[in-house]
Amino acid sequence: MTTVDEHARTIERMLAGPLGLAGTATGTGTETVPLTDALGRITAIDVSAAVDLPLFRNSQMDGFAARAADLVGAPVSLPVVGDVPAGHAQPPALARGTVTRIMTGAIVPDGADCVVPVEDTRLSADPGFAGLGSPDSSSSDPDSTTTHAGASVTITIPRVAGDFVRERGSDLRRGELLLPAGQRLAPRHLAALAAGGHNSVLVRRRVRVAVITTGAELAPAGAALESGQIFDANLVALSAAVTEAGAELVLAESSSDDTGAFLSILKRATRTANLIVTSGGVSQGAYEVVREALEPLGAVVGHVDMQPGGPQATAVVDGVPIVCFPGNPVSTQVSFVVFLRPILRRAAGLTGLPPTARRLAGPVESVAGKRQFLRGRIRDDGTVETVAGAGSHLVAGMARADVLLDIPREITDLAAGQDVGAWVL
Amino acid sequence: MTTVDEHARTIERMLAGPLGLAGTATGTGTETVPLTDALGRITAIDVSAAVDLPLFRNSQMDGFAARAADLVGAPVSLPVVGDVPAGHAQPPALARGTVTRIMTGAIVPDGADCVVPVEDTRLSADPGFAGLGSPDSSSSDPDSTTTHAGASVTITIPRVAGDFVRERGSDLRRGELLLPAGQRLAPRHLAALAAGGHNSVLVRRRVRVAVITTGAELAPAGAALESGQIFDANLVALSAAVTEAGAELVLAESSSDDTGAFLSILKRATRTANLIVTSGGVSQGAYEVVREALEPLGAVVGHVDMQPGGPQATAVVDGVPIVCFPGNPVSTQVSFVVFLRPILRRAAGLTGLPPTARRLAGPVESVAGKRQFLRGRIRDDGTVETVAGAGSHLVAGMARADVLLDIPREITDLAAGQDVGAWVL
Repeated sequence: MTTVDEHARTIERMLAGPLGLAGTATGTGTETVPLTDALGRITAIDVSAAVDLPLFRNSQMDGFAARAADLVGAPVSLPVVGDVPAGHAQPPALARGTVTRIMTGAIVPDGADCVVPVEDTRLSADPGFAGLGSPDSSSSDPDSTTTHAGASVTITIPRVAGDFVRERGSDLRRGELLLPAGQRLAPRHLAALAAGGHNSVLVRRRVRVAVITTGAELAPAGAALESGQIFDANLVALSAAVTEAGAELVLAESSSDDTGAFLSILKRATRTANLIVTSGGVSQGAYEVVREALEPLGAVVGHVDMQPGGPQATAVVDGVPIVCFPGNPVSTQVSFVVFLRPILRRAAGLTGLPPTARRLAGPVESVAGKRQFLRGRIRDDGTVETVAGAGSHLVAGMARADVLLDIPREITDLAAGQDVGAWVL
Repeated sequence: MTTVDEHARTIERMLAGPLGLAGTATGTGTETVPLTDALGRITAIDVSAAVDLPLFRNSQMDGFAARAADLVGAPVSLPVVGDVPAGHAQPPALARGTVTRIMTGAIVPDGADCVVPVEDTRLSADPGFAGLGSPDSSSSDPDSTTTHAGASVTITIPRVAGDFVRERGSDLRRGELLLPAGQRLAPRHLAALAAGGHNSVLVRRRVRVAVITTGAELAPAGAALESGQIFDANLVALSAAVTEAGAELVLAESSSDDTGAFLSILKRATRTANLIVTSGGVSQGAYEVVREALEPLGAVVGHVDMQPGGPQATAVVDGVPIVCFPGNPVSTQVSFVVFLRPILRRAAGLTGLPPTARRLAGPVESVAGKRQFLRGRIRDDGTVETVAGAGSHLVAGMARADVLLDIPREITDLAAGQDVGAWVL
């Protein structure tokens, strides 16, 4: 019988190329998206700055642009010859022995080599120039550099050249690497892209996944049921799981147990998907539509040493990999968490969420001869306990779990305080 | 001067009501969404099962439904009188001394009290009944319960009543609690809702956030720049940060430094948003549009003991809370992480991502008298180091960080190996 780890490796090998898992390979292709749609996407290539950052030499503070040489022997009183708000065009060069008022982010005039913060200055009274602390809205026109005849400022301490001046390109120069290929884009990366002159970015296409559930007994959620039917929990669960793992859901349909109907949906899926996931119809009983349809196409159908989730299969049709899970809802969900979530999340630039060791709050019994994935819950003290039963049909019980406890094949009894692998849900 | 913690508490108090942060309050309202759109949403009320789970008594295995009393003294050979595939309507009651073939999930006939797995049976040869291992597609009609004249099966071991039978309602009974109010919906919860008879769910509305950036120097990302202008990094960064924190972005606009223009956007925002976030225009310099527009409306404008991010303000206009951040891009982003991300994430049912202790890889210097948020990076060994400089304009440097190192006000020197608070980005 195949082990869980062997089957996981089989699936990973099958998906590595089509999903572009190996390094710089981009099996899913690339696309250009606006920055407003790029959160969580992954850069397809190195991106360099299209402009210098900062774009121009600007002030770090609200205050006065000056020449350090004019401030030797401070306190000194100097005439204020202009006013440079942020957003203002290149101001005239600053003459020796003068200063200009300047706001944070505004262009430092040629000639000035430092900025004196307003708190280190005293402005002389001037009816046309209300000062920094109480701005006059009539002076808020950023398109005029007014000269304030008669205004002067006393600067109380000297400065050295460069003080409170942000040099052009001091953060990054045009053409330098802004973001490497393979960067998952968080808000701070989008900010850097915008500041660096970009309004769109070339990213990897997301993995496109099709979900097909099977089973003659399945009715759509909320539909009117006939005798023997149940609601299809797998379609909504697998669709959401695919989305949550960072992939793009491109098809989600339920198939009857008719092989022709199943293959018709499958063929449609192969035209848009990088990966197809199925549930149900894969065990050794009768009426197993996935096995019956895919075995003639070369599917590998077998049994994996796990509970829930034993019957598993893989296939490739028209070049598209197909991963087939059993149909019991807990089996389907556990299979996704163990076999596909790690791969899809890594393809989306997320951590694979591997199991971590957690201490058991109480004793746990497990069935011999099968690797068990028991439904568990993390307690407030960080230990874990089982919830609900082991049955693969206990879909309400599964909803009360927040971890899967991974009990090795050979273990039948675990004591309180022992460590166990826990897959967070 | 206000401390970071004081300002954080001020914002939390201001938002608690409008955002429904306090327990069961639903300040943002509720809405019904289909299960296919409900991933990550939060249940507004307790949800109970609309049907029994399982819906009917069904088989846990592929095999034969039987009476345990008939299996005493196994091996015994019994006639096979029918075939119940999954999805099949209620089969006739099982007569004493007979069995019926049954598939996993199929209705167990009245009269039968156990299921014998196929591996514990030997089927007699029967041309019209190919057996479980090699299903005959001509027998795959789930709408007929055929009697297989002459077929019989040898059951090799006895069973007790209940073996491999899933009792109706054994997972959850109709009317019992399926999901509590306040449950953030993951795939397993959606599966339980679907199985439990729901195709939609009443959830809290997401927090609706409007983002307004200000600054005469700001041009849209990628636009043609005039002298003195820079690209607006804050609009895309705050918009993405709001989305990433689980809120809904309902408006994202940049305002000039004209108070009328700013107030016009703000008024529009108050009609749709639960929260408005602004950047820029909030310090004590001239041309500070947010301060000038909101102080007459009762805004509290002040300085918080932090670097970057000192100038901060809060206001309430038309009942809508407004949180105002400074405009330097690193200041804006740090302010969001420290003051709004925890609240918005908790409102979305996510962890608040508080800072955790991390060991310093090397010595770190900090400025005295201000709580510093330095850009840092987590190394492979789990220790942290600073990246980029401390300047609040270093937007490219910020993109290289993956944590903020939180250095207390009084600390100026930290040695390698010391612990420091780290806010993950």
